[in-house]
Amino acid sequence: MALSAANKEIVDKAIRANHERIFYAQYPEHPKAYGEDAPGLGVTAFNNQLGKQYAGLLQQNPVGWEGEEVSPYTLKPLGITYPVFEVETLVVRAGRAFSAWKNVSVDDRAEILIEALEKVKYRFFEIAYATHHTTGQSFIMSFQASGPHASDRALEALAMGYEELNRFPASVQWEKPMGKTSVKLHKQFKAIPKGIGLVIGCSTFPIWNSVPGMFASLITGNTVIVKPHPKSVYPIAIVVEEIQKVLQSKGIDPNVCQLAVDSSANLITKKLAEHPLVKLIDYTGGSAFGDYVESIPGKVTFTEKAGVNSVIIDSVADLKPVVQNLAFAVSLYSGQMCTAPQNFFIPETGVKQGDTVIPYEEVKKALVDAIAGIANHPQMGAGTLGAIQSELTVKRVNSVKDLDAKILLEPAKVANAEFPDARTCSPIVLEVDAKDVGVYENELFGPIVLLIKTKSTDQSVELAKDMVAKHGAITCAAYATDEAAAKMITDEMESVFAPVSLNLTGMIWVNQHAGFSDFHVTGGNPAGNASFTNPEYVNKRFVWVGHRKVV
Amino acid sequence: MALSAANKEIVDKAIRANHERIFYAQYPEHPKAYGEDAPGLGVTAFNNQLGKQYAGLLQQNPVGWEGEEVSPYTLKPLGITYPVFEVETLVVRAGRAFSAWKNVSVDDRAEILIEALEKVKYRFFEIAYATHHTTGQSFIMSFQASGPHASDRALEALAMGYEELNRFPASVQWEKPMGKTSVKLHKQFKAIPKGIGLVIGCSTFPIWNSVPGMFASLITGNTVIVKPHPKSVYPIAIVVEEIQKVLQSKGIDPNVCQLAVDSSANLITKKLAEHPLVKLIDYTGGSAFGDYVESIPGKVTFTEKAGVNSVIIDSVADLKPVVQNLAFAVSLYSGQMCTAPQNFFIPETGVKQGDTVIPYEEVKKALVDAIAGIANHPQMGAGTLGAIQSELTVKRVNSVKDLDAKILLEPAKVANAEFPDARTCSPIVLEVDAKDVGVYENELFGPIVLLIKTKSTDQSVELAKDMVAKHGAITCAAYATDEAAAKMITDEMESVFAPVSLNLTGMIWVNQHAGFSDFHVTGGNPAGNASFTNPEYVNKRFVWVGHRKVV
Repeated sequence: MALSAANKEIVDKAIRANHERIFYAQYPEHPKAYGEDAPGLGVTAFNNQLGKQYAGLLQQNPVGWEGEEVSPYTLKPLGITYPVFEVETLVVRAGRAFSAWKNVSVDDRAEILIEALEKVKYRFFEIAYATHHTTGQSFIMSFQASGPHASDRALEALAMGYEELNRFPASVQWEKPMGKTSVKLHKQFKAIPKGIGLVIGCSTFPIWNSVPGMFASLITGNTVIVKPHPKSVYPIAIVVEEIQKVLQSKGIDPNVCQLAVDSSANLITKKLAEHPLVKLIDYTGGSAFGDYVESIPGKVTFTEKAGVNSVIIDSVADLKPVVQNLAFAVSLYSGQMCTAPQNFFIPETGVKQGDTVIPYEEVKKALVDAIAGIANHPQMGAGTLGAIQSELTVKRVNSVKDLDAKILLEPAKVANAEFPDARTCSPIVLEVDAKDVGVYENELFGPIVLLIKTKSTDQSVELAKDMVAKHGAITCAAYATDEAAAKMITDEMESVFAPVSLNLTGMIWVNQHAGFSDFHVTGGNPAGNASFTNPEYVNKRFVWVGHRKVV
Repeated sequence: MALSAANKEIVDKAIRANHERIFYAQYPEHPKAYGEDAPGLGVTAFNNQLGKQYAGLLQQNPVGWEGEEVSPYTLKPLGITYPVFEVETLVVRAGRAFSAWKNVSVDDRAEILIEALEKVKYRFFEIAYATHHTTGQSFIMSFQASGPHASDRALEALAMGYEELNRFPASVQWEKPMGKTSVKLHKQFKAIPKGIGLVIGCSTFPIWNSVPGMFASLITGNTVIVKPHPKSVYPIAIVVEEIQKVLQSKGIDPNVCQLAVDSSANLITKKLAEHPLVKLIDYTGGSAFGDYVESIPGKVTFTEKAGVNSVIIDSVADLKPVVQNLAFAVSLYSGQMCTAPQNFFIPETGVKQGDTVIPYEEVKKALVDAIAGIANHPQMGAGTLGAIQSELTVKRVNSVKDLDAKILLEPAKVANAEFPDARTCSPIVLEVDAKDVGVYENELFGPIVLLIKTKSTDQSVELAKDMVAKHGAITCAAYATDEAAAKMITDEMESVFAPVSLNLTGMIWVNQHAGFSDFHVTGGNPAGNASFTNPEYVNKRFVWVGHRKVV
């Protein structure tokens, strides 16, 4: 085995992209790039899988088969079952595989992982259908987020790992001059992997949020156990299968990367996480469980938890494209994104637009109208909002009606011609006052928007900053045409480690974080302790050990 | 201000050295390199300071003056007092200084810190006397460890920080092609420092162990509060003074780097460590307090705690230079080094030497004789063993006599012609069996050596590995002439993240870790969670935040 020239070029380009942080995509985001046959093959594969055992994994002797996925579009079970294993079996296999995998060279690991990504590429359409019918994302979003965007983030992590693992020479001759003589030592520098990694997935982004941790752990020589959300297994099962097949084709134990399926009735996440041989944990999901994961002694954790994302509106060049942009940002996948804005801080004194001031009430109306406009739009509505992954999210939307807040926009079903039974829900928009911290200080996951009337932009920033410090945030959208105001907002938000997206309009939204350029989550506030992909994200997965011997 | 060409060259050379890991020293370790006047000026400065207030710091309005340093060589107080401040004063000043320091450019921070190192260089002799008379190190070791070696490690950390802070572009134009049009964003990438750093020093290496954390925190834009051990303040006070003076000369608040002196009667370390505004903690010292430091919620910690360092003797080319080397390693500064070997695992079947086998009893005798030889050597003894920093160490040596172990060599006073009252103690050597884990599983800090009779090298390795996994280790010395045995030892020890020094003889000892080449502590086992200086050591002190705005 060796790292082929073509794959070395992919790694080198990705390393360069990580450094330069300009636009780069190894995997094009447009479905047409994958050939004319691809969509048909994908839908056939998907249809053939429904109602059957998922037979592609190379994990032997399951103790049972389970599956509980339900399409948010049809509300019918997918009927797919997955092999189930005892926790101890998974850990023993991961440990045995580790003994070999840690000694596979970095180049060989890279070869295997890139080959797997190239294989996954041919399954982007099946992955898109699998994502669509487990997460409720629109088809096009499913394709992009679970296909090319996810593979790019996997490659980004792989490239960061590859670079860091090659940061120091494997061996050097060290010679210390001592007058007429010298001391000579032969030194070896080895990046020793930590051990077994656990990757805990979420139901809304089963691939995008899981592959960075998987690839970061694997490239650095750790083995991984991938524990998907029981409601969204199919998409990541495809990725694990392709990794296992490439491993086996190279004569390596496929248990280097295992899928650990459980069921809502018998969750195994805590048992896996607390197992003494599990050293690394990647986690995406709610804050309560994330805080628990971070608290387990003796683990290195990489978490992405909930946050409260703010919009700060101070001044605009033109209000219309601003509210359109923001309405799309809250509507995209019905706000079921960790990057979606929730709290809109608007000064009661209104929003400057050039030399005029648009009164608060007008700004509010423009926003509500823009949000309603997308949900009610016969072409855009269903495709933008998608479906609601979990019934709990619909319940949450209904329960916020009971909050002490004025309802500006009632949630409603979103018409979906293709899937009339789809679980849908358009955004509810509520209005609260700055003093109602109790209402807006929690993440209200899903299509829930809060307009918060403040005294001034200064107060908006103070409250938004306070939210980040206490509850975390992954994004912050701000609108300020005045340079001093923009700087003030940026300075304040970065002091609590929240990135600011300023004056976004048009075809770019605060929710989007581009691979090879945007750090996803900073790791510096309570929304998560890790970042896709900064150097720490890979460096914490191994330890530099330097051996010396006399020459 | 700007980074001068000369200082830029120093940074660039140090960055290259960090990468290449071949021999490099910015500061020569031989005292003669510092000029003919230097020794005289140093002793004068030291003598002038004795019995007086330490007036060099730029910290205003102390609430009192305290000092309790006692020379281990004369057993007399140095009589130096230092300004004392309330914890809240220190934190408020550090916070105020942070607001400005975080906005000082990386180049300017580097200029200031390198200028300070250059100023410190002119005080190496005073530092050597200060270290000699607080730690008990021999004069030459004091000079090297607190002078050039420490400054090299400070520069190493500075260079690693400088490189990482410049890893990503400060700003880029990101342009995403979208068919006939494109989306353009202006992106900024900023390394935002965490806040206030606390550096907790130890009594035996007051500069060497503290400057890496200080310089790592400072270069990354954090302010630091340096809390030395009350018995060893003078050496690091000089470094803090020089940093403060350069800061002030550049118009920057000298409270960017403060000295926080306390007394044994009124220790302030916990108050500082638990203060919510203190975000980073660097710590060197015992494991119990280190474990506490690591457990404080919301802190990023960098610890070097105790470990149990092993020697594994399997086979030798020639026993004599081996036992000489090891005897020196345990005698140097009377074993008061975190890198000193403690547990010698020797197979009862003896040690191979070429085609013969040296019986266990002979190996034992050779080791004991070599250790006794250094302590009793009229020229080498005092200069190698130095003095004992703390009376507690002498007590520990005496108390191990009560252990259930055979005493092979009794501890004794070490003759010191220059300082007849010096607190000295030659190594005690005990013999125990492999089964007496209870005796040898603890760090017995000071001149205490345990010979452990094992069944075989396999058992030696198993026990040594177990010690590392449970109690940590910073070094491991191994002797194996057979390649397979050497590989087995190395593989096993690296699996618990302990570095192996193989077959050291002559003028290089397992205790020594060279700046720019050897990682000091791996960070992977219970001996500490950080490493001088790997990338994590600097990266954890700041957060990458990426802002975006529409072009």
